[in-house]
Amino acid sequence: MSFSHAVKRMLVGRKLASTQLGETLLPKRIALPVFASDALSSVAYAPDEILLTLSLAGMAGFAFSWWIGLLVAVVMAVVVLSYRQTVHAYPSGGGDYEVATVNIGPTAGLVVASALLVDYVLTVAVSVSSGVQNAEAMLPFLAGHEGPVAALVILLLMAMNLRGVRESGTAFAVPTYLFMVAIIGMTLWGLFRILVLGHELRAETADWVVHSSAPYAQNFTGLLMVALLARAFSSGCAALTGVEAISNGVPAFRKPKSRNAATTLGLLGLIAITMLGGIITLANLTRVHMLDVRGGAWFVKPDGTEVHHEATTVVGQLARVVFQDSFLPGFYLVVLLTMLILFLAANTAFNGFPTLGSILARDGYLPRQLHTRGDRLAYSNGIISLAFAAVALVLIFNASVTALIQLYVVGVFVSFTVSQFGMLRHWTRALRTETSAPARQRMQRSRLINAVGLTLTGIVLLVVLASKLLHGAYLAIIAMVVTFLVMKAIHRHYARVAKEVALSGPSDRALPSRVRAVLFVGQVNKPTMRALAFAKATRPSSLEAVTVAVDDEQTRALLEVWDDNQVDVPLKVIASPYREVTGPFIEHVRRIRTDNPRDVVSVYIPEYVVGHWWEQLLHNQTALVIRTRLHFMPGVMTISVPYQLRSSQEAEQRYEADDPSAWRMVGQ
Amino acid sequence: MSFSHAVKRMLVGRKLASTQLGETLLPKRIALPVFASDALSSVAYAPDEILLTLSLAGMAGFAFSWWIGLLVAVVMAVVVLSYRQTVHAYPSGGGDYEVATVNIGPTAGLVVASALLVDYVLTVAVSVSSGVQNAEAMLPFLAGHEGPVAALVILLLMAMNLRGVRESGTAFAVPTYLFMVAIIGMTLWGLFRILVLGHELRAETADWVVHSSAPYAQNFTGLLMVALLARAFSSGCAALTGVEAISNGVPAFRKPKSRNAATTLGLLGLIAITMLGGIITLANLTRVHMLDVRGGAWFVKPDGTEVHHEATTVVGQLARVVFQDSFLPGFYLVVLLTMLILFLAANTAFNGFPTLGSILARDGYLPRQLHTRGDRLAYSNGIISLAFAAVALVLIFNASVTALIQLYVVGVFVSFTVSQFGMLRHWTRALRTETSAPARQRMQRSRLINAVGLTLTGIVLLVVLASKLLHGAYLAIIAMVVTFLVMKAIHRHYARVAKEVALSGPSDRALPSRVRAVLFVGQVNKPTMRALAFAKATRPSSLEAVTVAVDDEQTRALLEVWDDNQVDVPLKVIASPYREVTGPFIEHVRRIRTDNPRDVVSVYIPEYVVGHWWEQLLHNQTALVIRTRLHFMPGVMTISVPYQLRSSQEAEQRYEADDPSAWRMVGQ
Repeated sequence: MSFSHAVKRMLVGRKLASTQLGETLLPKRIALPVFASDALSSVAYAPDEILLTLSLAGMAGFAFSWWIGLLVAVVMAVVVLSYRQTVHAYPSGGGDYEVATVNIGPTAGLVVASALLVDYVLTVAVSVSSGVQNAEAMLPFLAGHEGPVAALVILLLMAMNLRGVRESGTAFAVPTYLFMVAIIGMTLWGLFRILVLGHELRAETADWVVHSSAPYAQNFTGLLMVALLARAFSSGCAALTGVEAISNGVPAFRKPKSRNAATTLGLLGLIAITMLGGIITLANLTRVHMLDVRGGAWFVKPDGTEVHHEATTVVGQLARVVFQDSFLPGFYLVVLLTMLILFLAANTAFNGFPTLGSILARDGYLPRQLHTRGDRLAYSNGIISLAFAAVALVLIFNASVTALIQLYVVGVFVSFTVSQFGMLRHWTRALRTETSAPARQRMQRSRLINAVGLTLTGIVLLVVLASKLLHGAYLAIIAMVVTFLVMKAIHRHYARVAKEVALSGPSDRALPSRVRAVLFVGQVNKPTMRALAFAKATRPSSLEAVTVAVDDEQTRALLEVWDDNQVDVPLKVIASPYREVTGPFIEHVRRIRTDNPRDVVSVYIPEYVVGHWWEQLLHNQTALVIRTRLHFMPGVMTISVPYQLRSSQEAEQRYEADDPSAWRMVGQ
Repeated sequence: MSFSHAVKRMLVGRKLASTQLGETLLPKRIALPVFASDALSSVAYAPDEILLTLSLAGMAGFAFSWWIGLLVAVVMAVVVLSYRQTVHAYPSGGGDYEVATVNIGPTAGLVVASALLVDYVLTVAVSVSSGVQNAEAMLPFLAGHEGPVAALVILLLMAMNLRGVRESGTAFAVPTYLFMVAIIGMTLWGLFRILVLGHELRAETADWVVHSSAPYAQNFTGLLMVALLARAFSSGCAALTGVEAISNGVPAFRKPKSRNAATTLGLLGLIAITMLGGIITLANLTRVHMLDVRGGAWFVKPDGTEVHHEATTVVGQLARVVFQDSFLPGFYLVVLLTMLILFLAANTAFNGFPTLGSILARDGYLPRQLHTRGDRLAYSNGIISLAFAAVALVLIFNASVTALIQLYVVGVFVSFTVSQFGMLRHWTRALRTETSAPARQRMQRSRLINAVGLTLTGIVLLVVLASKLLHGAYLAIIAMVVTFLVMKAIHRHYARVAKEVALSGPSDRALPSRVRAVLFVGQVNKPTMRALAFAKATRPSSLEAVTVAVDDEQTRALLEVWDDNQVDVPLKVIASPYREVTGPFIEHVRRIRTDNPRDVVSVYIPEYVVGHWWEQLLHNQTALVIRTRLHFMPGVMTISVPYQLRSSQEAEQRYEADDPSAWRMVGQ
């Protein structure tokens, strides 16, 4: 076992056979943390972005955070209820993609798929960036290196996910539950201190005043104020991403899959709303203020000094004010768990993205190799693609949550809206054939829920588009359109090829009348002789050995060795006026082919099998070029006769010891 | 004809057939500028570097430039005389490499080759950098962009040389001759004005005083002064590089090759010494001062202002002082032609490097594809390698002549010294068998000349090593050692492989008893049916179609289509516990092979031939992996049966219209 192999095994664990797949199914108590971390973790940045956006209107803006929080909670509740219907109706895990495809059409499905693929990437980028931002409260030396640190975290998550879904589930459950306990505990203890004990808790930024160099600051009235509130609400809606992950992940649940998934979804909604409400309430009571440094604003402290950097995150400020003078370990626990949960939130996308990618590959919208499972039964190719795209994003935006959040949310609301419309049609169609009264009643109730969901998510989508388009959402939309067009093109390509290669009649099976074998000779040695022996063994109708004369002296020597070895096949020498090997040989094969149109030409090429890539540079280059060019000639098959040099044995053992997924990454 | 094809034709011209090679032989009047530009052009920087180094000793140092110049001229004369012997004794163009290999041994030859290869790269880098530096006198906006501009010039030279040696020769002759006339004319006119007309010509830097922040400046006495003079001399020896180019290029001369080459060599030496002597004399008479800005020195003008940038080049200063008030166009002509000749000097290396590389490839020290000529009969691969290495150098050193010159010269004196030693042995051995008295006398005279040459070049090599090693020459030495080791490793590899594959007896030609054919089936369509038809046409002893069951549903559908089409070959289904295609298929083939050790297994793989690289990503990935892995299995041949999709036709036409050299660059 080589070192790299050992490292790989350490990172991704043992192989899992297909029959072991059952074992990787998730019980509810594990599924909740695996699929819920995204939605839950957004309490670590959604309140921040709400307050930060409101700060554009100066100190007066912060008063609106209650209302924004309440609105987000309402939307969340409706979306959760809507998706419970989807989980029941479509237990196969296609989620929004399947709902849209089946009920509206393939194009609608593809729109949803593009939106979701882009949003999965953004989920990873935003969550990990926010995690790094939170980590800075404890590890200040990270400041200034957010991009690379976030990229590193994403690559670690990738490695964990290549181990397979079950093990990550177990590993992720404990911190997720601890996070819930910590946040809800902090909220309760804070409220208890304020409301019952009458403590006056004031956040570190409570007395800091927002100043801004922007000309319109402090002048937010009328429509401008509405627009600002809409933007704050849009950022707050980041809390809703991840809700749909469960509907894509139903097959990963234990049976009864749909019911377990629906229950988990309900629990998730309840916990998320509780946490978000708690944080916003506490932030208002302790008067947490946030600041958009990128918008040219700064704080002025009561003593007149100015603060030009971003404030600590909301959760960090709350944890400090609630625990600092009462239970200091609580502060560290909350900050640490928030950081952890954000990194784990990215894991939701690492579950959802490859599943969706695999379904799209099955339907011919993505390269087929994405459909095959890796040896860990997770879709390695999808996991790797997701990680690389997210790494690119955090490096480009230097892991700034405020910048990335402008791109976020659009995709998820596109898919919410389209999928709710699909569900509406689903129930309408189901009602057409259903006769049992209780079933009809259930369906009508579901249809009503989905109708409300459609209305609400549609409105939110319009609000998000209107308020964020110019702030960065256009980038996300461009990414979705490009993804859509690429998938469409791939599908068109596969369809065209399938039509072109479909069997059309008995002429497809017409046998060539004869086989004319041609052996390419560069030197006279064992590889050439082996190729000759193999060619003879196939007993072709005709067999000729051909060499190209580039250097007269060498050619003469070659002919002598050929004769010396009493080879019973004549060696034909082709002249090469341009001192070039490939061209004249190809021409020769073409001539044979033209002279015998009903025969098949089989070209034997001896190849050296070597053990290292640099040895490959020293051999087989002619063989490579000849094979590539002969491929364009119908009725010609190229036959590689490998000759294994000693150095190849080591390489073979390396491949054999290693698992097949190393090969699959090359692509299947 | 495609656009890229048209552009290529425009840049590199029409193809030349092998029989046209005679036409590209050079008459003396063309050979002189082609091979001499390197040695001649060094007058544009060698005097600069001599004065610049001497300036380290303050104003007193400049007085020594006469002596340094004289010493360089003496060495030049001896080296030219020595190489005239080589040209006569070895007309085949192997030059120093051949001399060292034949007379001392392959390792000595390889040492010379490594030294020369590295020095060719440096010739290009130094000449082009100096050319850009000179160009700045006329085009000041180039300042600060030296690296990229030099890189661009090198790439243009590469394109010119890919056109072939003859056309470049003609193109290069005119400016080289004009340069000789301009420099010698300037010297004569300057001397005439000073000595006959009694004009007092003073260079612009004549009254500028060198100051330095270095602690040891102005204190150069005793050994320190000797060391400084040695360094100045070493830099001046850059004038000698290029002398050996003729000895490597003898085959490019018209007949009588040796005599023509020797005459050209003598002419070259005479002209170079004249020009160098003239420039140094004139620089002394007009009191040109130079400065090592990188060493922390600066000029102080008579009015007290300080100058912290490099002075104009020596040729530039001379041209200005000689022509400014008498014949202004003369100034522009000299500067322009100096710039041109420096760019053309790099051309010497573009002639020598690929020739040497091709000889080394023939001897198995470099990858074999370097041996094959390009369609322009120049060694395209070598030209491209040289250009890329030189581009890397000028970008790394930002085209600073003073920095690059520290790496220079070592290589050329290594090869001078080793080759002179080889010539000594050559004559000694020749004398052993020669009996004719006049011939013996001639040989003894030649031996004497080479002995003097050996002594002198050996001493210079030691001086160069001692004075430049720490200033940068160590980089050149590392490059030479690496080149040496790589070539040694390549040679060892080819030797080992040749031994391993050499025919050893009749067992090499043992025929396998039977052919067992296996058809890989992924889908049932025309490509698969074509592969099946071809497989049947070869009438194997056994034939089975094999598919791997990754997805039960898909497999069932596949079997149905197979039956529906009444294929008369059974379709075998292999289970795949890891949902992986390649591994189980490879295992199956291995089992057939193990069960029938005396038979050969032929594996038929249908392949899609597509027209674009991105289509390639969507197809054939499984085929690629299977073929790669089967290569490691002895007794198995893989047969690609291509199915040409419509999109491939366009690509084929593209390849056919284009010339074969596009393929050769991929490597042969």
